[in-house]
Amino acid sequence: MPKVIGFKTTDVRFPTSRGLDGSDAMNQDPDYSAAYLELKTDDPNLSGYGLVFTIGRGNDLQCAAIDLLATYAVGREVSDLAKSMGDFAKSLVRDSQMRWLGPEKGLTHMAAGAVINAAWDLVCKVSGKPLWKHLSDLSPQELVDLVDFRYISDAITPSEALEILTKAQANRVKNEASLIANGLPAYTTTPGWLGYADEKMIRLAKQAVADGFKLIKLKCGVSLEDDKRRLKLAREAIGPDVKLAIDANQVWDVNEAINWINALGDVNLHWVEEPTNPDDAVGHAAIAKAIAPVKVATGEHVTNRIIFKQMMQSKSLSFVQIDASRVAGVNENIAIILMAAKFGLPVCPHAGGVGLCEMVQHLAMFDYVAVGGENPDRVVEFVDHLHEHFVVPTEIENARYMPPLKAGAGAQMFDKSVSDFTYPNGPEWIGQI
Amino acid sequence: MPKVIGFKTTDVRFPTSRGLDGSDAMNQDPDYSAAYLELKTDDPNLSGYGLVFTIGRGNDLQCAAIDLLATYAVGREVSDLAKSMGDFAKSLVRDSQMRWLGPEKGLTHMAAGAVINAAWDLVCKVSGKPLWKHLSDLSPQELVDLVDFRYISDAITPSEALEILTKAQANRVKNEASLIANGLPAYTTTPGWLGYADEKMIRLAKQAVADGFKLIKLKCGVSLEDDKRRLKLAREAIGPDVKLAIDANQVWDVNEAINWINALGDVNLHWVEEPTNPDDAVGHAAIAKAIAPVKVATGEHVTNRIIFKQMMQSKSLSFVQIDASRVAGVNENIAIILMAAKFGLPVCPHAGGVGLCEMVQHLAMFDYVAVGGENPDRVVEFVDHLHEHFVVPTEIENARYMPPLKAGAGAQMFDKSVSDFTYPNGPEWIGQI
Repeated sequence: MPKVIGFKTTDVRFPTSRGLDGSDAMNQDPDYSAAYLELKTDDPNLSGYGLVFTIGRGNDLQCAAIDLLATYAVGREVSDLAKSMGDFAKSLVRDSQMRWLGPEKGLTHMAAGAVINAAWDLVCKVSGKPLWKHLSDLSPQELVDLVDFRYISDAITPSEALEILTKAQANRVKNEASLIANGLPAYTTTPGWLGYADEKMIRLAKQAVADGFKLIKLKCGVSLEDDKRRLKLAREAIGPDVKLAIDANQVWDVNEAINWINALGDVNLHWVEEPTNPDDAVGHAAIAKAIAPVKVATGEHVTNRIIFKQMMQSKSLSFVQIDASRVAGVNENIAIILMAAKFGLPVCPHAGGVGLCEMVQHLAMFDYVAVGGENPDRVVEFVDHLHEHFVVPTEIENARYMPPLKAGAGAQMFDKSVSDFTYPNGPEWIGQI
Repeated sequence: MPKVIGFKTTDVRFPTSRGLDGSDAMNQDPDYSAAYLELKTDDPNLSGYGLVFTIGRGNDLQCAAIDLLATYAVGREVSDLAKSMGDFAKSLVRDSQMRWLGPEKGLTHMAAGAVINAAWDLVCKVSGKPLWKHLSDLSPQELVDLVDFRYISDAITPSEALEILTKAQANRVKNEASLIANGLPAYTTTPGWLGYADEKMIRLAKQAVADGFKLIKLKCGVSLEDDKRRLKLAREAIGPDVKLAIDANQVWDVNEAINWINALGDVNLHWVEEPTNPDDAVGHAAIAKAIAPVKVATGEHVTNRIIFKQMMQSKSLSFVQIDASRVAGVNENIAIILMAAKFGLPVCPHAGGVGLCEMVQHLAMFDYVAVGGENPDRVVEFVDHLHEHFVVPTEIENARYMPPLKAGAGAQMFDKSVSDFTYPNGPEWIGQI
C-alpha cells in the first residue's frame, strides 16, 4: 500500500539557446526546460514523475506553482488515487482560491497538469503498465469518470462520451496488436527550424524522407519571400508524395495570416499550424474558411478544453494538437481526445521540447487503441532532441513511434541529467550565466 | 530625473474568509489579497505602486511572478517611461521565454499588469495628475501608441482607434467638467453576497436605494429556488425603477445557464453576469441569444484583449466588465475600451476586491472623458470594503464615483496596512494560521 509522503521540484534547464535548435518566429532563444516534479512514496523504489515544459525564464516560478499544488497528493495512498483520479484532478483544478489565478489557464493550470501526470505515473507504476495501456484497459465508464465535463457539456455529454468509448471497445484488441506491431506514424520538425540555412534544411528534409517520414514541417512567418523559397526547396527535396506542413508559431494577426498563407503559392500544404493567437477560436475559424482547402492545425498553446471546444464548434481547426504539459494533465487531455472523436477530428499531438514526446505518445496510443481508432490523418510530432535524458525514451522505428512497454507515464528523467542541468547551480550551468 | 532603482513585492492578505463577505457560488472562502508592488526610485519620496488582486492561496506565487517582471523597470528613468509606455508594456508581455507560460494569460499576465500599472503610477506622480486625467490629456496618437494591436487588428486597426479618439476630442472638456461636478454612476454588490440571510439582503438593498444607487446586483447560481425567492424579495425591496442584476460567477455550463436564467421568471433583470466560463466566447454568444432580452455582462476574469475581441465579434456580451488587475495593465485595458467603443458597447468595470475600485475608476473616467463619452449604461461596480487601506480611497457621493484629484494610478496603500496584513508574519496573521 504505497503512499505519497512528499515531493521535490527541480528547475532543470538545457542551454539550447546556445545553438539555434528550437528557434522559430516567436521563440528566438529558448532554453528548453522542465519544471520537474517527483512525488515520493514510502517505498524508496517508487516515485511518480511529472513535468511542465517551459523555455527558460520563469521555470523557477513554474516549480513554485507545482510546489503549491503538489501538497494535494501528499498523504494519499496510490491505490486510493488509482480509484479516484477524476476527483483528484478536479480537486487541483478547482482549488477555490488558486482558481482565481487562472482560472484553468497558464502557469497554475500547467502546474496542476504536472501533479496530475506525476500521480498517473505512480498509478501506472503500481499497475505495472505503461500509461497508454493502463488507460486503454479501463472500462468506458471508468474513463468517463476521469473527465471534468464542466464547461464542455454543450459539446459532449458524459453519455455521449460513454457511447463513443463503448463503440470503440470492439476494435480495442485489434488496435492494440497493431500498435505493438507497427506503432503510430511520426512526423518530424527536425529539418525546419528557422535558424537553419537552406542547405541544412534540404539535407535534413531529404534525410527525413530517407528515414521514412511521410510528413515534414517547416517553421515560417518571418519573411514571406523566405517562406516561399524554403517551401519550394523543401517540396523539391521531398518530392510530391511526402506531406509538407508549416508552423507560424502565432506570429500573424488574423488578416495577415490569411494574406500570407494565400500568397505562398501552391506547394500542396498539408496544414498551417498556429497561424495566430491560440486563444482566438473566432480568428482561427475566419482563417480556416479563408485558406481552404489548406487546413489549420493548432493546440500546443491552447490552454484548456474550453478553448478547444470552441475551436471544434467553430470549425477553427482540422488537426487537434494536444500537448502533454499545457493543460491539466492526462485527464483534461482525455476530455479533448473525446471531443475530437465526437467532432470527427484527428488528434495529432504536439511534441518536442523536454519530454513531450515521451509523455504525449501515451495519449496518442490510447486514442488509437480505445477512442478514435484507425485514422489515416493521425500523426505524432517527433523532434530528435534530448531523449537521452529520459529513462524510457521514445523509440522511433521506420518513422513510427513504437509503444513503450515499461510501466509509467513517461516523464521520468535520469537522476544525473536532472542534477547536471539543474539551474542555476548544476555543473552544466556553473560559470555559464 | 527620477529613475527606478529597485522594487519590493509584499504578500498582503486580509482574512475576509473569517466572515462571509465576498462569498459567492464559485468562491466560497476568499481571503481578499493583494500581490503588492512598489517600484522604488532614487527619489526617496517617489515610488510607484501596482497590485494584483487575488483571493488567498497563490498570492505568494503572484508576488514571485511580479518579481520576475519588475526587473524590466529597474534602471529606467521615469521621464523615459512616460514617453514609451506602449513599448514598455509590450516588452513585458512579449518576453520571449516568459511568454511560454501564458501566453498573455493567468498569473504571469497579471504580473505584467502590476508592473505596468506601477510604472503608470510613477508616470502620473511625476506629471502631477491622476491617471484618468493624465490619459485624457494625451493626444489621440499618443493613446494609440500605448496599445498593442497584435491579435486584435481584425477588430480594430490603429487608424480606426485614432478616428474614435479624435472624434471624442470634441467633448473632452465638457465631459471632464461634468465628471468633476457629477462623477460617474456606481452600482453596488454589497447587499447581494450569497452568505447573507434574506433579511440582511433586504435591509442592505433598501439601504442601497436610499443611498441613491440605481442598480444593485445579487450573487446567484447555487439554488434555483433560492435565486427565485431572493430576486423576488429584492425586487420588492428596491421597487420597479431600480435596476437589478445577477452574478453567477461562472457556475453554469452553457445549457444549464440558459435553462436557469429562463426559469427565473420575470423580475426585469438588467444583466446576468458571468453565466459560464470566461474563456467561452462561443458559449456566451449562445447564452446571450437564448436569454434575450436579458443581457449578458462579463469580463472580470476575461484574461486578455483577444478573448474580449471574440466576445464583441460574436455578440457574446452587452456590458464590458474590465478589471484593473486581470489583464496586462492600463495599456491592455485601453485596447479593450477602444474595442468597446468600436462595437458600441458600454464599459462597466468590475471592482471590489482589494484596490480594484481605486484603480479601475480611472479607466472608467478616462473612457467617459476621452473615448466613449456619454453613455447611460456606463456604471462602475462599488463594494464598500477595504477602502480605508488606500492612500487615495474611492469617494462615493450620492452613489456616484467622484474623480480622484491626487496624482497617481490608485494602487498605493498605507504602509501600516501593508505591514499589518503581510502574510504570514504580519501582526494580523500571527497566531491565526
